[in-house]
Amino acid sequence: MVRRQIPDIVIGRLPVYLRALNFLVAEGREITSSQELGDRLGISSAQIRKDLSHFGEFGKQGTGYDIVYLRDQLRQIMKVDKMWDVALVGAGNLGRAVADYGGFQGKGFRINAIFDTDPHLLGKTIGHNKVNVQDVKDLAASIKERGIQIGIIATPAEAAQAVARTMVDAGIKCILNYAPITITVPSSVRVQYIDPVVGLQRMTYYLS
Amino acid sequence: MVRRQIPDIVIGRLPVYLRALNFLVAEGREITSSQELGDRLGISSAQIRKDLSHFGEFGKQGTGYDIVYLRDQLRQIMKVDKMWDVALVGAGNLGRAVADYGGFQGKGFRINAIFDTDPHLLGKTIGHNKVNVQDVKDLAASIKERGIQIGIIATPAEAAQAVARTMVDAGIKCILNYAPITITVPSSVRVQYIDPVVGLQRMTYYLS
Repeated sequence: MVRRQIPDIVIGRLPVYLRALNFLVAEGREITSSQELGDRLGISSAQIRKDLSHFGEFGKQGTGYDIVYLRDQLRQIMKVDKMWDVALVGAGNLGRAVADYGGFQGKGFRINAIFDTDPHLLGKTIGHNKVNVQDVKDLAASIKERGIQIGIIATPAEAAQAVARTMVDAGIKCILNYAPITITVPSSVRVQYIDPVVGLQRMTYYLS
Repeated sequence: MVRRQIPDIVIGRLPVYLRALNFLVAEGREITSSQELGDRLGISSAQIRKDLSHFGEFGKQGTGYDIVYLRDQLRQIMKVDKMWDVALVGAGNLGRAVADYGGFQGKGFRINAIFDTDPHLLGKTIGHNKVNVQDVKDLAASIKERGIQIGIIATPAEAAQAVARTMVDAGIKCILNYAPITITVPSSVRVQYIDPVVGLQRMTYYLS
């Protein structure tokens, strides 16, 4: 079967659906509807049905979605039904918070390489997976050796572009960037930004 | 003039447009197009034009958008042309990283109240704005006294719901939640989640 090209904006909503489904599973629920998902997420039920229809038939008219089944299908579609190795650069407050983050568990990611430039941090063991902080000089070699495709940048803004370049040259295909700066990468590499400003600004519209 | 109800999903894209416009300003650019913005953001140019048309007429056919003008209009629409006080709860690694974040500057937000439970942190001065860490016992009184409407939760998952409840009872209307847990609030309160998993999962689809 030839899979049609699916708009990136649809792909971008899948993790949000998966997140909501995980919450429903945690609440012990078994069946949901596009209406309920939509109400929770502020997305129309029609949009959700249309998005999911790109990937197949997940619910029956009138009976809703089997939550665990839909969750497992989405995990497969997004390829997070396996574990991806992730390289983290930056072991300051932010980097340590990311390394400690409990939310990666069971979501498809494992931070198992951490880098910094600070001599006081090198060799220290940090984070959820008890990883030794390595010198950022070893970043490229380590990425290549382990075939890591995903990187997280948690450095100061000034350092982010150079780190991104090293990551890309070594084979990283996806970058999650916490530094408050836009980074330039080849079009074959994907970048997502974690920016609290975007989250805050989408709420102030409603304040009086 | 009566403003029509604008879909929340449209409101949610405005900060992303503003972010892109800020980058263009930083690059010294003066004019852009819905096509260029769309290419940068992975959103169709038709969607961008439709979103912006909810708020007025910002560009002329064939000449594109004046970047600074559109940026300033969006800042007004989102009400981030003024400075909002923000209360941050949690002064551990993550909280300190948020407090230190350089990206809030000029974006409409100022973290000027920080709370924790750790006796070793109380009274310490942290973050970009050199704020004293207060006891979380004083959270409600401080929010009320200053009329703060925006809160950021950077606590462990176990503490997040109780903090959210205290915030809401004291008058907070918008919460940015970093804790890896869903929080329950009245429907009059808005919550946004900062979740690195969502950012990572929307890229793995493209990996092979």
